[in-house]
Amino acid sequence: MTDFTPTRADRFSFGLWTVGWQGVDVFGGVVRPPLDPAEAVHRLADLGAYGITFHDNDVFPFDADAAEKERHLGPLRRALADTGLVVPMVTTNLFSHPVFRDGGFTNNDRDVRRFALRKTLDNLDLAAELGATTFVAWGGREGAESGGSKDVRAALDRYKEAFDLLGQYVLDQGYDIRFAIEPKPNEPRGDILLPTIGHALAFINDLEHPELVGVNPEVGHEEMAGLNYASGLAQALWHGKLFHIDLNGQHGPRFDQDLRFGAGNARGAFWTVDIVESGGYDGPRHFDFKPPRTEDLDGVWASAAGCMRNYLILRDKTRAFRADPEVQAALHDARVDELATSTLAAGESLADLRAESFDPEAAAARGMGFEHLDQLALEHLYGVR
Amino acid sequence: MTDFTPTRADRFSFGLWTVGWQGVDVFGGVVRPPLDPAEAVHRLADLGAYGITFHDNDVFPFDADAAEKERHLGPLRRALADTGLVVPMVTTNLFSHPVFRDGGFTNNDRDVRRFALRKTLDNLDLAAELGATTFVAWGGREGAESGGSKDVRAALDRYKEAFDLLGQYVLDQGYDIRFAIEPKPNEPRGDILLPTIGHALAFINDLEHPELVGVNPEVGHEEMAGLNYASGLAQALWHGKLFHIDLNGQHGPRFDQDLRFGAGNARGAFWTVDIVESGGYDGPRHFDFKPPRTEDLDGVWASAAGCMRNYLILRDKTRAFRADPEVQAALHDARVDELATSTLAAGESLADLRAESFDPEAAAARGMGFEHLDQLALEHLYGVR
Amino acid sequence: MTDFTPTRADRFSFGLWTVGWQGVDVFGGVVRPPLDPAEAVHRLADLGAYGITFHDNDVFPFDADAAEKERHLGPLRRALADTGLVVPMVTTNLFSHPVFRDGGFTNNDRDVRRFALRKTLDNLDLAAELGATTFVAWGGREGAESGGSKDVRAALDRYKEAFDLLGQYVLDQGYDIRFAIEPKPNEPRGDILLPTIGHALAFINDLEHPELVGVNPEVGHEEMAGLNYASGLAQALWHGKLFHIDLNGQHGPRFDQDLRFGAGNARGAFWTVDIVESGGYDGPRHFDFKPPRTEDLDGVWASAAGCMRNYLILRDKTRAFRADPEVQAALHDARVDELATSTLAAGESLADLRAESFDPEAAAARGMGFEHLDQLALEHLYGVR
Amino acid sequence: MTDFTPTRADRFSFGLWTVGWQGVDVFGGVVRPPLDPAEAVHRLADLGAYGITFHDNDVFPFDADAAEKERHLGPLRRALADTGLVVPMVTTNLFSHPVFRDGGFTNNDRDVRRFALRKTLDNLDLAAELGATTFVAWGGREGAESGGSKDVRAALDRYKEAFDLLGQYVLDQGYDIRFAIEPKPNEPRGDILLPTIGHALAFINDLEHPELVGVNPEVGHEEMAGLNYASGLAQALWHGKLFHIDLNGQHGPRFDQDLRFGAGNARGAFWTVDIVESGGYDGPRHFDFKPPRTEDLDGVWASAAGCMRNYLILRDKTRAFRADPEVQAALHDARVDELATSTLAAGESLADLRAESFDPEAAAARGMGFEHLDQLALEHLYGVR
Repeated sequence: MTDFTPTRADRFSFGLWTVGWQGVDVFGGVVRPPLDPAEAVHRLADLGAYGITFHDNDVFPFDADAAEKERHLGPLRRALADTGLVVPMVTTNLFSHPVFRDGGFTNNDRDVRRFALRKTLDNLDLAAELGATTFVAWGGREGAESGGSKDVRAALDRYKEAFDLLGQYVLDQGYDIRFAIEPKPNEPRGDILLPTIGHALAFINDLEHPELVGVNPEVGHEEMAGLNYASGLAQALWHGKLFHIDLNGQHGPRFDQDLRFGAGNARGAFWTVDIVESGGYDGPRHFDFKPPRTEDLDGVWASAAGCMRNYLILRDKTRAFRADPEVQAALHDARVDELATSTLAAGESLADLRAESFDPEAAAARGMGFEHLDQLALEHLYGVR
Repeated sequence: MTDFTPTRADRFSFGLWTVGWQGVDVFGGVVRPPLDPAEAVHRLADLGAYGITFHDNDVFPFDADAAEKERHLGPLRRALADTGLVVPMVTTNLFSHPVFRDGGFTNNDRDVRRFALRKTLDNLDLAAELGATTFVAWGGREGAESGGSKDVRAALDRYKEAFDLLGQYVLDQGYDIRFAIEPKPNEPRGDILLPTIGHALAFINDLEHPELVGVNPEVGHEEMAGLNYASGLAQALWHGKLFHIDLNGQHGPRFDQDLRFGAGNARGAFWTVDIVESGGYDGPRHFDFKPPRTEDLDGVWASAAGCMRNYLILRDKTRAFRADPEVQAALHDARVDELATSTLAAGESLADLRAESFDPEAAAARGMGFEHLDQLALEHLYGVR
Repeated sequence: MTDFTPTRADRFSFGLWTVGWQGVDVFGGVVRPPLDPAEAVHRLADLGAYGITFHDNDVFPFDADAAEKERHLGPLRRALADTGLVVPMVTTNLFSHPVFRDGGFTNNDRDVRRFALRKTLDNLDLAAELGATTFVAWGGREGAESGGSKDVRAALDRYKEAFDLLGQYVLDQGYDIRFAIEPKPNEPRGDILLPTIGHALAFINDLEHPELVGVNPEVGHEEMAGLNYASGLAQALWHGKLFHIDLNGQHGPRFDQDLRFGAGNARGAFWTVDIVESGGYDGPRHFDFKPPRTEDLDGVWASAAGCMRNYLILRDKTRAFRADPEVQAALHDARVDELATSTLAAGESLADLRAESFDPEAAAARGMGFEHLDQLALEHLYGVR
Repeated sequence: MTDFTPTRADRFSFGLWTVGWQGVDVFGGVVRPPLDPAEAVHRLADLGAYGITFHDNDVFPFDADAAEKERHLGPLRRALADTGLVVPMVTTNLFSHPVFRDGGFTNNDRDVRRFALRKTLDNLDLAAELGATTFVAWGGREGAESGGSKDVRAALDRYKEAFDLLGQYVLDQGYDIRFAIEPKPNEPRGDILLPTIGHALAFINDLEHPELVGVNPEVGHEEMAGLNYASGLAQALWHGKLFHIDLNGQHGPRFDQDLRFGAGNARGAFWTVDIVESGGYDGPRHFDFKPPRTEDLDGVWASAAGCMRNYLILRDKTRAFRADPEVQAALHDARVDELATSTLAAGESLADLRAESFDPEAAAARGMGFEHLDQLALEHLYGVR
């Protein structure tokens, strides 16, 4: 049996805010001591990760001046150098400080929007310096609790303005950076702008530089809307827009659980790994989870290790599934391959098509064979094939 | 007090399948006699509607030949002529017959996809003949219950192929028809392609003739994913893609309830009418609901009348809300108008922006005044202002 | 038009933690300064409330000794005396301190369970001293994120043990106090014990002193499970167990929004007030909401005032609904009253019943008239009747 | 590797309506031919089931007289005799015929309630004759779409009246039959009475013969409310009320999917089998699922076989999980066993308890070790331990 030990070739990355989460929620305070970013880098390196990611204020305080920033960045840089870990992605915290109570780029207050831009520009410079090539934008407080308080179309204008300005800045600076918008339907706001993968993909098309912007879908965020995450990834890939992924676990429409990857919707995780591995995505396998508040630091590391291990287990399983001759036969019997054939033949006209005869009753009698196929998949998940 | 009696100027339309629903569901059979389409036209005309819409098989049977189709269409045409009702929209049933068990345009079976295209082309001809300018496409069974049974990217290829072919056909025929895709997250399939407004908008951008295709969002379908329908309409309008709407009622993530408009999420209905009336949408106010199975035909008409009446009541309320000086002051205090101002001033550079000083702590102390504003909205809904 | 100004006769109460919420959530920190409990009492008195409620640690710190407790309780007592406000309910915070990371009464750690009991006993003494007659128990962290970590049946044993001990203590001390269990399906735990009104009612039946324990249902908690709150209240009343209520607003299955009462599900609020006013409930109309994080203190008070005002508006509407002759006729036509008649007549046997003849087809043709009735209700909500 | 072939000792049973579902839903008609009940018995026997269950009208038509009933029952009896299959449970269809549009026992129409009682009494006689010892009652249409149309407390009175009468009848006839109420939150009604396990358990306590009535929880029904099915079973067992179970699959709050067992929430299925096998439940392992509409009859049998196979696979896994020494150590480290110890020691008084000293800060530093434990469980599910 494979030992499922991650290596850097697996390209697993973690947000510093994940293992560093101290457990504060609406109903309770800190349960774990602060985790030094450099310490986190070393521990994650030991566990087999290849990179870390962060919000600016995961590393230095909100009000840090240049000197203080550097005091915090220095040890992080050294830890990265010592371990060889990379920073493939950086993101900006535009949601924790009370100034962002109504969001950042789409805050009703113009001066806050301007401040949010400045904070993001500073962070882009840092991202470029650290070699990050993806810059995630989660607009967690870009939204509203009530219909009158936000002019959604104006908000989309401002959102577009922000991404257009940031895109131009990246081009002007020659940064090798692309943006990835992270959709979420709600929490902490009642309704959040660009609530799903689809809404973000649609929005990107109206930007000045759509080629610079893709999506960073998170398992739990799509599942909070009852949507199929793997199907969402497939559509993002179809549009050429899957720039980054956030892997974790969730139990359907409820609060954002941020469970470790594999916990939550186990069958969804199987199909997620299947599409990530086979769909042409070549970015980091990034975990955005929260070790439950019940855990101490040992539990934090157990949880982080579990994310990677579960990914590797599922990677083995999905490969075995695709390689299984009985599965291949079942896929063929279910005509899954037939969907790749164009509906109209080359050179065929609609008139030709309309002239064709067809017996719908006979066709209606055909079963699809999906239950047999899905049972094979499930048995691969169970490890009994 | 206004009497809220609809007139044709209000442009209310109903699907024949709404008042004609006989009550069949998974757990029970027919509770109401068939409703003759011509009779439905007359009754809806009497109630104040200006138009009706239909699926092909709402009017004639699935296997009808040309003669039988005309036998059914004749009385419908006469009823339209007699009443002056119009047919602003037509749609195709690609989901009821068992041949569509795996969908139409994205069915794994190529011959079924071809049949679905033929059926739709025939129906486009009929739509054009009847003067319909919108052709709705609800892909109710384009989806899957299990991850292996559908290659989502191939399905999107086929979906695109279908809309590209249909769009070209409309152009070639010179039909004054635009398509409107109706998203839905699930039911009757486990997961449906293009599950939300956003996914459909994103998809449209990759079509050959995106200008021909928009969306037909339904209240309940978005709310089944926990999404804010009015915000979805706003984004569709922002993209210039709100071609048609389906109004009804729903209680959040659960089965598709298709309640009459106004029943369900009452506050959501207020903001829905607000954006429909003020956002530049100029299509029909179309109801896609199901009179509950508890009702006889009197209940069916009471339910249909309620849809229109509730719309008119809410139209009055949203107008009063927008005209209320105290509301206008509250909107201003909440800086809702300030969001319309670009974040960067004309001629300003990012360098200028970055040179600006700002006191985030001071800004963080400002409240947004949203609760006061929302309370005013709620009191307009309640009719106590 | 009525002015909807609350008076003490309306018996509105607020948790100190509601207006005192400083806005900390998973994604951000404090947005509002601490609110002195005595100040809250004065402000709520001015707004028209008749009482306040609190968790022990809303008033004094977790680690306060007797002297420090009294330093905090003194000003509260004075404010109560000055304003005449009462304390109808007290509750214990068994969820904020990290010691309660796995809950209180059902924590896997026995010493924590013992500590939770001590903390609750101390708080019962305080409740009795302040004249509170209801003691709410929300077991917010009594639950689990994963199936193996909690033996649910053992947890119910310990939960029962706790309520049996507390009940006996109240009896032994002669306190005029009843307990009210507050159900919640999830958040902050993945799954919480006694997740709905029903589960709590069932549990209570197995206690040593079921007569001492009822439920404290919260609007949002039931709606997070997609359940109808008013129907839940009706069942609790049917069992004689509606000891207290928590009024607020929510938008279906998602995070716990704690919106002000009236915001959220407006139609649900109408039926909630209808059953609260007509169903024999005689306790406080208690609000457990969170003024959104967007608000400053002015917004806090606007939100609190809105809760009461909306209740009074809806009280007027539900009374008008019940008094409306057309409604009464519609209720009768819908045979709503007929459900009060026993199915078997007095003295009738099942043999008599079985001898009766009946034409189901004729009966099946009868409509229920529910749409007409519900439209009348909706028009009362809209204020257009 | 075990072959996971079911035997009668496994006591798997299926509703005739499961494999016999013809695929009718709100959006489409019949996709499969009628399945003869006798044929179903033979096929299920071949697959390894030990029993079948049915609604009266799964076997004979709604309007059948005694002779016609017997014409349909005869072949069923013979098939049972030929195969040795048993009928452990029978249930009544009070929801398909239009006469039940507003439910059966709680229909507003008294004559319908009386008819529902008669139909149920007849079916009880049949159940007794066939040796069924469990009589399931799913009140699928006992509910409402709107607040005014149903007096919930009166409905509970009538519901109680029905169960009291039926219970007395069973006692009077000396039938060895217990009732099992099947909760469901919604669909096909907007809100259904007794929406969860908890509500049903609470209700049962107020019956004349509570000992005769338990619950029949269905996986999907609880998960439609976002509730944890295994935890619900545990509470039902704690109350001694788990009389029957309905196993299937679901993906959270949405329409009732009735997927085969194992499909849907795979981790939930693991914990479900764990509690069913270890919690003292000794009834049939009953499947209430619907083979998806995509399937022909081969797919139906594949789906049915999958239900049993998945149960056996998971039974193996849960046994291995409980027997695994590392799991046992992890359970101990997580103090799961400590919850079985009473919080107060034997002979200890509350005064003793209150005299104890405790350092909450020290206790607060302890992690629970739940992530490690849950990872072990997940690896058993994956089959990699």
